Formats: sequence, structure tokens, C-alpha cells
Amino acid sequence: MALDAAPAVVALGGGHGLYASLSALRLMSDQLTAVVTVADDGGSSGRLRKELDVLPPGDLRMALAALCDDSEWGRTWSDLLQHRFVSAGSLDNHAMGNLMIVALWELLGDTVQGLDWVGRLLGARGRVLPMASVPLVVEADVRREAPGERAAGETVVGQSRVAVTDGRIEQLRLVPADPPACPEAVEAVRAADWVVLGPGSWYSSVLVHLLVPELAAALHDTDAKICVTLNLGAERGETHGLSATDHLEALHKHAPGLRVDAVLADPSAVEDTSELAAAAGSMGARLLMRQVRRGDASDRHDPLRLAAAYRDVFEGVYGDV
Amino acid sequence: MALDAAPAVVALGGGHGLYASLSALRLMSDQLTAVVTVADDGGSSGRLRKELDVLPPGDLRMALAALCDDSEWGRTWSDLLQHRFVSAGSLDNHAMGNLMIVALWELLGDTVQGLDWVGRLLGARGRVLPMASVPLVVEADVRREAPGERAAGETVVGQSRVAVTDGRIEQLRLVPADPPACPEAVEAVRAADWVVLGPGSWYSSVLVHLLVPELAAALHDTDAKICVTLNLGAERGETHGLSATDHLEALHKHAPGLRVDAVLADPSAVEDTSELAAAAGSMGARLLMRQVRRGDASDRHDPLRLAAAYRDVFEGVYGDV
Repeated sequence: MALDAAPAVVALGGGHGLYASLSALRLMSDQLTAVVTVADDGGSSGRLRKELDVLPPGDLRMALAALCDDSEWGRTWSDLLQHRFVSAGSLDNHAMGNLMIVALWELLGDTVQGLDWVGRLLGARGRVLPMASVPLVVEADVRREAPGERAAGETVVGQSRVAVTDGRIEQLRLVPADPPACPEAVEAVRAADWVVLGPGSWYSSVLVHLLVPELAAALHDTDAKICVTLNLGAERGETHGLSATDHLEALHKHAPGLRVDAVLADPSAVEDTSELAAAAGSMGARLLMRQVRRGDASDRHDPLRLAAAYRDVFEGVYGDV
Repeated sequence: MALDAAPAVVALGGGHGLYASLSALRLMSDQLTAVVTVADDGGSSGRLRKELDVLPPGDLRMALAALCDDSEWGRTWSDLLQHRFVSAGSLDNHAMGNLMIVALWELLGDTVQGLDWVGRLLGARGRVLPMASVPLVVEADVRREAPGERAAGETVVGQSRVAVTDGRIEQLRLVPADPPACPEAVEAVRAADWVVLGPGSWYSSVLVHLLVPELAAALHDTDAKICVTLNLGAERGETHGLSATDHLEALHKHAPGLRVDAVLADPSAVEDTSELAAAAGSMGARLLMRQVRRGDASDRHDPLRLAAAYRDVFEGVYGDV
């Protein structure tokens, strides 16, 4: 990375978590690439995937909306992409941007070109790519420990079900197990200065990236530094009851050899800072604690605070503030 | 109209006919307004109208596509607007542009603003407006004269049915009978140098404009000159068996006091030129005969030939060529 140049950053994730990281990163990098999960099987995306045999577009749409130019033009088209129909009929709940992305894919016959055209429409600061070239199914082995009952194992199938399971996830898998990665996404990871993992639904939007073999290999081999950004609060569903340290350990379990350079966490979301720092250290990472939460007590990131924290991470400013 | 300036032109119509006139007029006017029928009740538009209680967007979409900028950008977004989904599910046959226009209406809460935003997207040369602010229903009293049977009258309801009726249309009506016109459309007619009526499905896309009272009043009062462009061939359905002269007489019947300045026809579509010239003359119009058909024997207009013919009309060059 050239002196004084903005770093080339790749953000991995999906859904609202990726929207949050991109809303921050777009303020500080003009070489930004989002690599997005394509395993959604619920809602508008799930219906489109089934009806038209395409990649689920919803997470890609949200990432594009996050990168839109902050002008009347950019905001109008971004709002249009996010607009959902409400009716008693078959269009109900379809997001306009999902339909537009799918139509561009059909028209151009090329996933990446279609996404690039939406990016041009929005004046997007950066590029949005799928993590794989085929639609994926997420499966999880979960274990439930209800009081007074014997622990029972079962397999939960589909991202929408995995995201809300109340069992403890022991193992995550993709079907197919060896999907082709998007070549441009692999190249972006290899060429990056920093790769950011998280925040987001930990298993179904973040860890899934590590299960795409070519993408995992690129993450292991790249000269880019890796930052893991932890969530702001305990979510219902897949990570219910997991501590910040548990999140890091789940990452380690699904990508044992992965070197991590930085772990970014909000103090309010960490019960035991020493334990978390030790877990980070065991993966090679330094822990940066910053308030990145909004002031409204919601579990949502403040884009400016998160951007400033990323600047600290990327420039190695780890002192207490 | 200032010397040397391109004339301000308003084109009235719908469907493929309006697409043809706009494809020509965009080559010669940078002050072009399309005023479009909003009575469609078939196909994608009919379903959207029913499901979401909106103006049928299809004719508006086609008009916008006709005006798109002839660049990679304009052509790509125009192709996207015209793209139709094909599936075994509920999206089948929906045109992408119809969905986009409706979503913009819902987002912005304003019909004209929504259409203007699509125009900006396409780099459209000109503006597209609806002829009325509410969805319309077309009704026609038709008479069938089957061999050996007594002539029977009936009422056909809905543009999609009127367009294909095999009876002779005696009277056309709108429901509601006095719909509010789009104010910007009325203003455009009043401010125009030329108004072009047709080509197109004669009753269901062209004459319907004369049934919107405020629009009809503007057409009667305006200082603009009026050109009627006749169709290239006998269509199946609503005008089956009607001659070019019959078309003019149907216009006269539905707008008795309307002054017409020019009638443009292709020689191959006129059986009796003297009769047509007389009918034109009785409405105050001169007849201009030009080959405006494509060279491929289809009943489609050639945009360049039609544009050149309009230049002849607008500049009063009526000599034989």
C-alpha cells in the first residue's frame, strides 16, 4: 500500500452486518470490495432463487445500497433498490432491487457485470461481488440442551433456519461443499491491504465465507491483514448465549489455521476483556476496544465511529482513548 | 416557434404506435413530450394495476424506452426496462420497467416525478406523461354483421378486449367519463408547436386521448398545429376492414370540432388517395404521402423515413418526392 493512499479493503459478510461495515468503510476507502454470501433462502431472495434459478440477490442488494453515492441521485436509486412492494398478491415483500439485479443477470448473462451496472447506477463507492458463483445451502449440526432433557443433535438446513436456531451450532457446512468461488472475489482478497470479517450473523453470514475453499485459501495466503469485527450484542437465534470470546473461538474452529491481525470490539459487548484479548492473541491478533455503537442504545453501529475505529486498526493506533 | 429552433412537439398515443412516432421525433426535436394512454388492462400492466391499484405502467414504459439516449448507458437501461421475466411462477411476463415505474411511484408518491426519474436514468430525450391521473377503462359499443345473421350490438369492456374485437366499433367511451387530465400534459399541448396523433391502435390508443375532456379542450384551443399519422396496414381486431379514410372519419366522429392541419400517410396503406385527400381537406388538413415504412415489408415504421416526413410536415414541404 502506497504511503498516503487509502487502503484497498475487502469486506466479507452479508445482511445488516455487512451494510454496517460498508457504511463505515466507504467513508475511508475508495478501493472497497464487498464479498457477499449467496446462501439466503428466505423472503424475497428465497422466492426469486426458487422461481428463477438464480443467486439469491438480497444480500448483494443491501451491500450495493450501503455503497451508494451520498447525492440526490444516489439516495433516490438506493431507496428504490430497498423499496418493497406491499400487496395482497404475489409481489408482496419483493424488494425492487432484488428484481432489478436478477433482471440484469438475465439480460447480460453475467453475474459480476450485472452487479457492476447496479453499482454504476448508484454511483457506488466500491464493488460488490458474490462469494460463490452458484447458489449455496447452509447446513448446521446443532445441539439443544433443554433443562431436564438429554442433549439432542440435529441438522438444520437453510440459512433462514440456521439464523434463528435456538440450538448451539457445532458444525457449519455448505452444500455443495466445494462451490466455485467468484474469481474476482478471490483476486480482490489476494490484492487487498485489509480484509474485514464481520460484523453480522456469525455463522450464517460471516463464517460461511471460510467454507468456500478457494476463498478460504486466498484468506490464508494473502498478504492482506485481517480484522475481525465482533457484534454489538447477543442476537437471538444462532449465537444466543455466546460471548465475544465464543465468537472468536467459533471462527477459529471453522478456520483453524487462519491468522488474524486485529479484533475490533465495543466495550459494552464484552463481558471479560482479558479473556477476549487472550483469545485474540492466540490467533495472532491485537484487540482494539472502541465505542462503535450508536448513541441510541440500539445494537447498531455508528458509521462514523466505526470508520474512525477502522482507521485506528489500519494505522495501528491501539492506545486507549 | 423561433426561427431555426427545433419545434416543441407533443405525441399522443400508446403502445407500439407511440414507440414508432417517438423513435422518429426524438431525432428532430429536443422539446418532445409523450402523452400516453393509461387504460391498459391486459398483461403485466393489467396485473399490476389490479394488484397494486396504480396507473397501468406499460405504455409509459414503452414510451420512455423509445426516448432513451443512444449510448451504452441508455441502451442498457432501456433494455432492462423492456426485459420480461419468464418463469413458471408469478413473475412470468412482468416487464422489469413496469415494476420499476410502479416502485418509483410508491417511493416518491408522485406520478410525474416517478416518470421523470426514469427519464433521467435513460438520458431520455423528452418527457413522458400520462394522459390522465387515474387508471381508465375503455368501453366500446360494437356491431357484428355475420353473414346470414342479424346485426347485433354489444358493449366490449377493457382496452385489451376492445383492441382485438372483431366487431365494428360505433362508439368509444371512458370510465370514468370525466377523468382528471395530467396537468403537465394539458400544459404541454397548449405550449406545443405541433401535436402528433397516431400511429397506433386507432380506438384504444389514439382516439381515447380525445375522450379526456381537459385534454380534448386543450387540443381544440391550442395554437399548436395538429398532424394525424395514419397506420401502415390494416390491423387485426379493432380496425379490421377500415380504410385510411375510415380512420379519419372515426377521428372526426369522436372529436367533431377538431381542426387538423396535416394528415401523413404511406402510399402503400392508402387505397383511394383522392378520397383520403378529400376527407383530410374536410377537417382543414393537407395530405402528405410519404414512404415511411421499413424496407422489409413489415407493417413497421422506419424511424429515419418517418422523421424526414415529419420535417416535411412541420416545414410545410408537401410536394411529391
